[in-house]
Amino acid sequence: MGTVERTAADLTTDPEYRSGVIDLLGVLAYGELMAFERMAADSALAPTISDKAALAGHAANEERRFEALRDRLLAMDVDPEVAMTPFVRPLEDFHAQTAPSDWLEGLAKAYVGDTIAADFYAEVAQKLDPETRDVVLNVVGATDFLEYAATQLESAVQSDPRVAGRIALWSRRLVGAALSEAQRVVEDRPALTHLYLPDLEGPDAAAQLDAIGLSLTRVIDRHNARMKRIQLEA
Amino acid sequence: MGTVERTAADLTTDPEYRSGVIDLLGVLAYGELMAFERMAADSALAPTISDKAALAGHAANEERRFEALRDRLLAMDVDPEVAMTPFVRPLEDFHAQTAPSDWLEGLAKAYVGDTIAADFYAEVAQKLDPETRDVVLNVVGATDFLEYAATQLESAVQSDPRVAGRIALWSRRLVGAALSEAQRVVEDRPALTHLYLPDLEGPDAAAQLDAIGLSLTRVIDRHNARMKRIQLEA
Repeated sequence: MGTVERTAADLTTDPEYRSGVIDLLGVLAYGELMAFERMAADSALAPTISDKAALAGHAANEERRFEALRDRLLAMDVDPEVAMTPFVRPLEDFHAQTAPSDWLEGLAKAYVGDTIAADFYAEVAQKLDPETRDVVLNVVGATDFLEYAATQLESAVQSDPRVAGRIALWSRRLVGAALSEAQRVVEDRPALTHLYLPDLEGPDAAAQLDAIGLSLTRVIDRHNARMKRIQLEA
Repeated sequence: MGTVERTAADLTTDPEYRSGVIDLLGVLAYGELMAFERMAADSALAPTISDKAALAGHAANEERRFEALRDRLLAMDVDPEVAMTPFVRPLEDFHAQTAPSDWLEGLAKAYVGDTIAADFYAEVAQKLDPETRDVVLNVVGATDFLEYAATQLESAVQSDPRVAGRIALWSRRLVGAALSEAQRVVEDRPALTHLYLPDLEGPDAAAQLDAIGLSLTRVIDRHNARMKRIQLEA
């Protein structure tokens, strides 16, 4: 299925594709709600009123992106709550395992964790019908928070080598926890997994696996570039 | 001064008026940031995903209203952080004294406390130049949250008489704490106070005091109507 160009018609004619898209919109929507919640909590911890206001603004942006995903689900006649429910546990577990202990860890979590997930979903989006792809890319392509977080983290890392070591360690832990939860979702949600992974029975399985390899390499390269941007080794 | 019709020119020619307006925008701005923060925290406590999403949406609306106030301060060449700073302590103290113990108390706090403050500031806005008045009324006149909260509270109150008693008591405590913080602000910020209170030395002081009395009666009547809306005595 991997080489087929999808169209919006597949959302009604191909039940497995439709299920996969509903899962994708559901996991992204709940992810945005979680991002909203965490950034709002970080806003409450912010060291200055200006930082508090900046985080509140970014949190509100996440909420608006949640609304775009919710509206897309409603337009597909899907109850957003039903679409999100399968992802509540994995996302809550991920966040429970990676609760930041302070303001900088909170920033790093959004800068490292949310963006690696966003880059991954941008790769998945390449396999979607154009309408769904636009909705997804508008959400995962948002960069309003990145520059703010990078500037804050870079200055903290440069001011104290112990901070650099702590944030580097924290980032590795975030990536590990994200991979472990991703693994769980891959196992539990075959339709979602199938949006991205090729049909291993098909004649061009080898070429498709190569394409997946390149796609994952892009995600890792972008992660490394972001770490380098804040003067850290990935 | 109470009967003078203000114009935007007063913002540059009358330093006391300008100070009062900066205070007003500052207290409203920090109030919106606090409202954002509390609604976001309530979102984290919400009993269902739909309630979580609803609260997140209202929190994002509060943040957008904060931005309108911040932008107005910037347009007046005022540092928003400087304008907000005098109100950080009184607002944080108010919120510390009235930390909700659960989801319903959080809703009631916004429904009772935020709206009585908004109604009061709407009365103050009548004494402002038209440009500032529009900014303030757009912020304090927002009703997106009210209908949602009223519906939730009314159904909780009707389902359990003990809830009714608890919310009625909680509401009186909120009003008491709000009046006590308002008293402190009145004492500490004379320019802000003077926007609303008449010049007691002037020839028409008695008429102006009557007008203030009517104005406060309107605020109280609206509060009573909101309590009645959720089947409670004020």
